[in-house]
Amino acid sequence: MEATAFVPGHVTGFFSAHPHEDPNRAGSRGGGVALSHGVETTVREGSGLTLDGEAIAVGPVERVLDALGVEARVACETPLPLGSGFGVSGAMALGTALAANAAFGLARSENDLTALAHRAEVESGTGLGDVVAQARGGVPLRLEPGAPGHGAMDGVPGRSRVEYLALGELSTEDVLAGDTDALSAAGERALATVRETPTLPAFMDASRAFADGAGLLTDDLRDVLDAVAEAGGTASMAMLGETAFCLGTGLSDAGYDPAVCRIHPPGAGLSD
Amino acid sequence: MEATAFVPGHVTGFFSAHPHEDPNRAGSRGGGVALSHGVETTVREGSGLTLDGEAIAVGPVERVLDALGVEARVACETPLPLGSGFGVSGAMALGTALAANAAFGLARSENDLTALAHRAEVESGTGLGDVVAQARGGVPLRLEPGAPGHGAMDGVPGRSRVEYLALGELSTEDVLAGDTDALSAAGERALATVRETPTLPAFMDASRAFADGAGLLTDDLRDVLDAVAEAGGTASMAMLGETAFCLGTGLSDAGYDPAVCRIHPPGAGLSD
Repeated sequence: MEATAFVPGHVTGFFSAHPHEDPNRAGSRGGGVALSHGVETTVREGSGLTLDGEAIAVGPVERVLDALGVEARVACETPLPLGSGFGVSGAMALGTALAANAAFGLARSENDLTALAHRAEVESGTGLGDVVAQARGGVPLRLEPGAPGHGAMDGVPGRSRVEYLALGELSTEDVLAGDTDALSAAGERALATVRETPTLPAFMDASRAFADGAGLLTDDLRDVLDAVAEAGGTASMAMLGETAFCLGTGLSDAGYDPAVCRIHPPGAGLSD
Repeated sequence: MEATAFVPGHVTGFFSAHPHEDPNRAGSRGGGVALSHGVETTVREGSGLTLDGEAIAVGPVERVLDALGVEARVACETPLPLGSGFGVSGAMALGTALAANAAFGLARSENDLTALAHRAEVESGTGLGDVVAQARGGVPLRLEPGAPGHGAMDGVPGRSRVEYLALGELSTEDVLAGDTDALSAAGERALATVRETPTLPAFMDASRAFADGAGLLTDDLRDVLDAVAEAGGTASMAMLGETAFCLGTGLSDAGYDPAVCRIHPPGAGLSD
């Protein structure tokens, strides 16, 4: 009656928003990186949600438990900051679905659990594409929006060190609730470029071009990306957070003291 | 100019065959287990294919190199036996595709490389569903046959020890070239059962029922499966090989000395 799941963090490099009244069909196209830093979620009998030991309310987690028809005690642990573009709310939702399914013997399939967490994120307005990317792992390209059965994905092959530097929070809800037309046009261009040349350098270049085109860069974040470029690297912005990320040692080379992890090839799953 | 990829072995528990003149649409429905025992493939400049240091001819590997338009030296290492239902030929083909793409900078996506290896297996008559299952990892359910973009997959959640005992070889080509109607009907029933209850015990029960229904059990293999059942476990046959496999300790409990590995959650990918 207790189970633990690990869900990788996920930084989106570029995306286009595709709202739809059916939350299974709503989602985003785009590309991102699944991270070896993620969220470990333990579900057992009881009630209440904690993140790193502190009580917290997270809409998508409550929706997942409601949809599964269970009451549970959910404890999440993560080195990643909330609200900074790492998909922490999506990871908590998907981890809760996977761990609750195992703890309570609910006999749902992996697609069912991913779809349930995806819908919970969409209905909460907290994300559009992190959950399906986190379920897949690697460097996921979201070719078509939506939950398993509706969306379609591919991946950029490759392994790499990842560095990131979180400067502050951005509200995904606020950005997604605003006018996303220009942003989405830039996202579609970036995705087409990376589908043409699915390599890690092309992914980073497209992400950097998208960050410029999307109009979401703060001055502080622009300074960091410029400093990495001057040092010969390519960093970009984790959508949607005031966070810089790069592959390799770009942030270190520019003199910053970033957190360090790796691309995480496996998708979300139960822990041994 | 050198790269290495790891592709998990894959035992199929049940399947239905779906031939099609377009090799992207040909394939199988069914379910299996991706194994932590697999094939490590290193590609570098040169020519020639070796398996565990011995020169060997493997049609799907040659087709993959032809399709990529490269000549290469391919060296594969594996603890798994060939021709025994572990998807070794598929793993060699997919590993060659992934490693050659990285070694020669071919800039193909993961779906492209999986599709290329899938087509090579189908055209060689050596397999119908191992490659897409090996690309995914975990306990893959093949809901619709074919390469990425055509097929559809789901997964049974869960982690487990896996034991296996290889008694001998079966020719996949011979079985697939024969009448597969009764076998496919049993495979469709097994898949429907596991989709209804996607749990590891249900997967093993459906695999055991399929092994009885498919008419491929040898006397020696039946003796092993019966002995495991008498000891309170469930083992089944790795399709298509004279191989028994089980989750947990069923073969050990029955007094055999099996090889031991685990369910391998990540799909195929480049090694670090």
